[in-house]
Amino acid sequence: MAGPAFTRLDVDERRAQLLDLGTGLFTRFSYDELSMARIAREAGISKALLYHYFPSKQAYFTATLQDKAAELAALTEPDPGLPPLEQIAGSLDAFLRWVEANGEAYAKLVRSAAAIPEVREVVDAVREATAHRILEGIARGQAPPAPLRAAVRGWLWFLDGVILDWIEHGDIKRKKLRRLLVGTLVGALTAAGEGDLLDRH
Amino acid sequence: MAGPAFTRLDVDERRAQLLDLGTGLFTRFSYDELSMARIAREAGISKALLYHYFPSKQAYFTATLQDKAAELAALTEPDPGLPPLEQIAGSLDAFLRWVEANGEAYAKLVRSAAAIPEVREVVDAVREATAHRILEGIARGQAPPAPLRAAVRGWLWFLDGVILDWIEHGDIKRKKLRRLLVGTLVGALTAAGEGDLLDRH
Repeated sequence: MAGPAFTRLDVDERRAQLLDLGTGLFTRFSYDELSMARIAREAGISKALLYHYFPSKQAYFTATLQDKAAELAALTEPDPGLPPLEQIAGSLDAFLRWVEANGEAYAKLVRSAAAIPEVREVVDAVREATAHRILEGIARGQAPPAPLRAAVRGWLWFLDGVILDWIEHGDIKRKKLRRLLVGTLVGALTAAGEGDLLDRH
Repeated sequence: MAGPAFTRLDVDERRAQLLDLGTGLFTRFSYDELSMARIAREAGISKALLYHYFPSKQAYFTATLQDKAAELAALTEPDPGLPPLEQIAGSLDAFLRWVEANGEAYAKLVRSAAAIPEVREVVDAVREATAHRILEGIARGQAPPAPLRAAVRGWLWFLDGVILDWIEHGDIKRKKLRRLLVGTLVGALTAAGEGDLLDRH
């Protein structure tokens, strides 16, 4: 007797495959172009099975975003043994490599952040968590003074703007871009009156 | 005989009044909550007269945005007789004063920029024009090198992020904020390898 017509996959494995597929689909097509029927067709599974994993298109979309955000957070996890600036440089390097591999999806994500409330929530949560992580590394658990908080939050916007420019023009080497990003952070912290925090560890 | 029941206004004056009214309305209400009928009621004019000035709600909305953008561009017009950094500091000061007076409207504008294509277009155009103006001041008509272009564009994002933080928390003095903004721009230009451009004039 022949084996089953469809590959039987472990639940987690199938879910992970669907999430991977989703990243590609939501990059290639607009949100409105995709239906659960079409997603199921692209995945080669029945609509019923797709609904078994994700109760709605919105839930599927949000899950693919959170999956990417988690992947990114793990990739850019700083090494707490290093001085703050080296931690940030290391995380940035991992982040920029990831963007190089996922440029189109990333640009679409940032640009659509405000258009789709679910995207905005994920992007805001990632920004908040990253700001927190950087402030933790710099201020070591102390409540950051207001200008320091504003400088770090603003710098995360700087990061998004510079990366969109980078994706659009593609005329800056990754190392040079990293230098621009780290140097600007140092400039922002110094302008916030907290430049010496970087040397205090 | 008594005068006309409604004040007769000059066409330009009426249009300017409607644009002023629109800024308030679109701040207090969401786009979807407003209809042309309601706008006319708030303005105390007939719907027919409102349509005479603006063919649609979208046209009205875009016109109020462009009006604010033009107001802002005029307010922050740099003084070409000053060195670049002083030009920028002067423009920033005017801009921050304007934000203090229009904080809520400004925050809503930035946050809704991607949600409504017309807003995004105006915000993008203002950012583009501002980047161009700053690069002109710094590079004096030369085509800017890629890292300089990315630094200035990224800094405009930094500006938006810092200002949202400022509106949200309200715990930083305007002068201190200006110092953070100018200092970060200097940091970004220096990190882009173009710090000496600031002294070359």
